[in-house]
Amino acid sequence: MALPVACDETVIVRVSLAGVCNTDLEIARGYMAFQGTLGHEFVGTVEEGPPEWRGQRVVGEINFACHSCPICAQGLQRHCPSRSVMGILEADGAFAEFVRVPVANLHPVPDSVPDELAVFTEPLAAAFEILEQLHVEPGRDCVVLGDGKLGLLCAQVLHQAGARVLAVGHHREKLAILEKRDIETVLADDWRGELASMVVEATGTAQGFERAVAATRPRGTLVLKSTVAEKPTINLTPLVIDEIQVVGSRCGPFPPALRALELGTIEVRSLISDRIPLERADEALRLATGPGALKVLIETG
Amino acid sequence: MALPVACDETVIVRVSLAGVCNTDLEIARGYMAFQGTLGHEFVGTVEEGPPEWRGQRVVGEINFACHSCPICAQGLQRHCPSRSVMGILEADGAFAEFVRVPVANLHPVPDSVPDELAVFTEPLAAAFEILEQLHVEPGRDCVVLGDGKLGLLCAQVLHQAGARVLAVGHHREKLAILEKRDIETVLADDWRGELASMVVEATGTAQGFERAVAATRPRGTLVLKSTVAEKPTINLTPLVIDEIQVVGSRCGPFPPALRALELGTIEVRSLISDRIPLERADEALRLATGPGALKVLIETG
Repeated sequence: MALPVACDETVIVRVSLAGVCNTDLEIARGYMAFQGTLGHEFVGTVEEGPPEWRGQRVVGEINFACHSCPICAQGLQRHCPSRSVMGILEADGAFAEFVRVPVANLHPVPDSVPDELAVFTEPLAAAFEILEQLHVEPGRDCVVLGDGKLGLLCAQVLHQAGARVLAVGHHREKLAILEKRDIETVLADDWRGELASMVVEATGTAQGFERAVAATRPRGTLVLKSTVAEKPTINLTPLVIDEIQVVGSRCGPFPPALRALELGTIEVRSLISDRIPLERADEALRLATGPGALKVLIETG
Repeated sequence: MALPVACDETVIVRVSLAGVCNTDLEIARGYMAFQGTLGHEFVGTVEEGPPEWRGQRVVGEINFACHSCPICAQGLQRHCPSRSVMGILEADGAFAEFVRVPVANLHPVPDSVPDELAVFTEPLAAAFEILEQLHVEPGRDCVVLGDGKLGLLCAQVLHQAGARVLAVGHHREKLAILEKRDIETVLADDWRGELASMVVEATGTAQGFERAVAATRPRGTLVLKSTVAEKPTINLTPLVIDEIQVVGSRCGPFPPALRALELGTIEVRSLISDRIPLERADEALRLATGPGALKVLIETG
């Protein structure tokens, strides 16, 4: 790959750490038919670009918007119809020594947040997206399905916001991370499927959707976080009969995520399961598919 | 069938007119595995029951709730988990000379509303349910997919509420009913699929869902009105990528529907396509399945 070139509106970031996301694994299986360099979770230092950014430690939002269409004008830059998306759609990603990022997408990292926490900004922002989309009243009963990386972050963000969270997963050691934060957990096999007014589907499986519908109370809300390449057969009738609201939820706002990392209100360090150097990126992806794996970090620095 | 018996909490209504709904046709195809008398849209006169109701012309809500469970206590009687549903679930329906209805479900019909309009209260309430569930700002762009009975009512209710409605259907003569009310329409084959911030899926088909998703703008709302026995294969990823909100929508509030019929703000008379006497109810159901059919009424009076 040729070294990317900075211009007035973009910078070149020297990547320090990058994180492997389930979306990367789905892309490797054919999702999005993406061909370039993978990776959209990163922290690094601006190497080239406008002088005020050079040398700055940064994280970067992954949707590269046009900033001039009607959707962008509504503040929906993350949904710009002509966007490219780092490591996912028409833009090379961060599993590389350098990555090119629009200036508009950069966020400086506070000095007190080390790289191994800052690299969680992007997935943590995706968890905060739930709070941007929906009003979560204090004490609201929320079930989070899935104890993968995103499930653990969603459970913590909802708990921190005052919801009564029950996290359902298959891995006792992953759920233990939440229990240390006083979040109630249950192994999926022991869960009796009590209805909740909000259910977050973060299992990363095509089968998770119907289970999530079945766990959502009438007039309740199902937050759909998993993106999967498969197309499941779905009975839509329960959505109508129980008047369930399904809310698709993707990328979120970086500032509250950075703030939570700075304040230490969300635990991410114990989500790191491996650190692998860039030259063994293939091994990093393989490790991330393991059932016990959580966040695999790629060290490029 | 034995004549139903009134008690303190129920009345016996002598049915004057009943309407055939698509749900009746789905039930006849096996949906809900219901075995009793069909019919949940009716107008009639109280024959037996508490004295204050006797002789009163009424319409009746179809969900028979327990009024004592936590869901009822939240005001969600239409979602009571131990409810029966007239002509759909464990309660005989209105394609009969008499039907038994809980007092709590009755609504008196204003004298100025004739039977042939009052019989539309239940399906019109289902259209008003959209306004109960969602905030529809004046000028909001709404696409209504489907020019069947429910589609025509939803389009009118949204138009009346101030939305900019485009109704998409396959039947020029059905869409003409909306054009007379200054609602924009387009034949499905001519529609270019421009994105809308709200899309109402009222095609009554399993295939309608994916088309509705494709027509919903990022962060937009898809109102799902169709209940179908089929289970389609669905790609859920666009819901997540475009952060679409899907809202299942079923039975609605009777008072605004009765008021609209009283004020004449919603056109329903031209939706009547046939009137068939009760003894030929089978023929009524057959007629209702025809592609050109709209509301088939069963005359029991």
